[in-house]
Amino acid sequence: MIGSTIAQMAVQSGAQVTILDAMLPAYGGNLFNLQGIHDAIKFVLGDIRDAELVKSQIPGMDYIFSLAGQVSYVDSNTDPLLDLEINCKGHIQVLEACRQAKTKARLIFASSRFVYGKIDYNPVDEGHPFNCLSIYGIHKLAGEKYYRFYHEAYGLETVSVRIANPYGPRQQMKHSKYGILNWFIRLALEGKPLTIYGDGRQGRDYIFVEDLAEAMFALGLAPGTSGQVYNLGTGTGTPFIEMAHLVAAAVPGTQVQQVEWPADRYFVETGDYVSDIGKITGAVAWRPRTALKEGIARTVDYYRRYREKYW
Amino acid sequence: MIGSTIAQMAVQSGAQVTILDAMLPAYGGNLFNLQGIHDAIKFVLGDIRDAELVKSQIPGMDYIFSLAGQVSYVDSNTDPLLDLEINCKGHIQVLEACRQAKTKARLIFASSRFVYGKIDYNPVDEGHPFNCLSIYGIHKLAGEKYYRFYHEAYGLETVSVRIANPYGPRQQMKHSKYGILNWFIRLALEGKPLTIYGDGRQGRDYIFVEDLAEAMFALGLAPGTSGQVYNLGTGTGTPFIEMAHLVAAAVPGTQVQQVEWPADRYFVETGDYVSDIGKITGAVAWRPRTALKEGIARTVDYYRRYREKYW
Repeated sequence: MIGSTIAQMAVQSGAQVTILDAMLPAYGGNLFNLQGIHDAIKFVLGDIRDAELVKSQIPGMDYIFSLAGQVSYVDSNTDPLLDLEINCKGHIQVLEACRQAKTKARLIFASSRFVYGKIDYNPVDEGHPFNCLSIYGIHKLAGEKYYRFYHEAYGLETVSVRIANPYGPRQQMKHSKYGILNWFIRLALEGKPLTIYGDGRQGRDYIFVEDLAEAMFALGLAPGTSGQVYNLGTGTGTPFIEMAHLVAAAVPGTQVQQVEWPADRYFVETGDYVSDIGKITGAVAWRPRTALKEGIARTVDYYRRYREKYW
Repeated sequence: MIGSTIAQMAVQSGAQVTILDAMLPAYGGNLFNLQGIHDAIKFVLGDIRDAELVKSQIPGMDYIFSLAGQVSYVDSNTDPLLDLEINCKGHIQVLEACRQAKTKARLIFASSRFVYGKIDYNPVDEGHPFNCLSIYGIHKLAGEKYYRFYHEAYGLETVSVRIANPYGPRQQMKHSKYGILNWFIRLALEGKPLTIYGDGRQGRDYIFVEDLAEAMFALGLAPGTSGQVYNLGTGTGTPFIEMAHLVAAAVPGTQVQQVEWPADRYFVETGDYVSDIGKITGAVAWRPRTALKEGIARTVDYYRRYREKYW
């Protein structure tokens, strides 16, 4: 979702774009995401775990959006070694390739709010403790630290973002292991009810993928951001149940039902999360522009049109 | 050094001890370290990268001192993937083995002051930022987070320590990639001068290995320490040059010489580091007991006697 949105916007702005994607079945790779730009881009089917392939792709790049990853925090806990291979080893290999190529490219790394894990206070600033509740969160933290280290030790121009709850067109819709807002849209479009645990009052910071992509462009283009890490969200918390009702309103006839929390709550997210976005808005002119209602409407519209490409 | 010291003390206190060590040439494995307890312990030649072997060793253990590691921060930067294999993958495998075995054993994990990297203030408490300046530091941080995660998610009884500058008998003496105090003792015993970069005023927190081992026993035995991480040092900073003069005084005739800092200082440690040990001394009755002068004297005495086993 994020990579193809960036690619779409980059092509529109006149950039030459290469996409490297492993198209792993569990994640969101979908060639339909490149609708309209297939002929404008170069597509490399490959994996950041393949060091030689990564090396071959670095020369000539000016901006590298380093988004490859195992993206399910649920799966990271059941298969920590796979998460390690992709989210740690893969990114070390990207950075080693960049170091060896002496590239001047800006590298923009996608980290996650999951580095914070259990939240001590809201809104969460970048100095919040790392109470990681998942292997995914631990490895995203390591990833950020790699990108910072390669900046400080070797002068690579790296910057990281801790993404809140992204949603929008082009996300995979085959399973619910990540991206609950999009999953609720699928359920709604199928006429199924949306299920809320407990009172659904936990706040989330849902950011529309185009806003997110614009922020990553802004940070990549700004000169003073190397070595830094920024929260990337809207700065606004929306109760989970309110999000569900917004989805239901966008797909008339959708029911919202509330049930008890499951017995084993550890792996189910609880508690609030709202990004403090003061650091990023102080560094670049970017602001989130898409209200949640509008973003949901655009996402619903997208999947109404292209449902058969994602289901 | 640390593992064999713990083994010696554990045998003395009547424990049944199994040692698992890969005896990798670059690190400190040395069978002479087990002098006097060879017949009292079980020794398993093996590597935490071998998941099946690790699994086979968990049943029956009450205390697991999880010290296996790639231990050179210098080498971690030149070979980050090896560091990843041992310090991340290896420890995930230890924890997975413990989870699957449903062990009730206490696990004591050796992390490092290197998680702090560039120091913002002294003394350094556990809330200090993680300005990791090495892959080693990043992976020790990940390691701590694994041990905490497996405690919170699966109930394993884990605790981590961030070790300052350990020194003492039984450390490897073949190279200077880690353990500078011991290395200075080797140079002194060989009649070579001790070289100081710059004014040598940077403070370090040198902790004698027996004090360190006692702290790890204390944390492992205390019931309330699971899920926690503690600084483990003396709480006292000693200027680098003062340490050198103490070594020189312990080996009469040793010269101390001062030279300019090398041009590329990034990978050379600068700045002060002193542990704030308020958290550990508040949690257990342990206190460091060995003054630096005494610890150096005991270390010099050890290597005078057993030089041929370590050179």
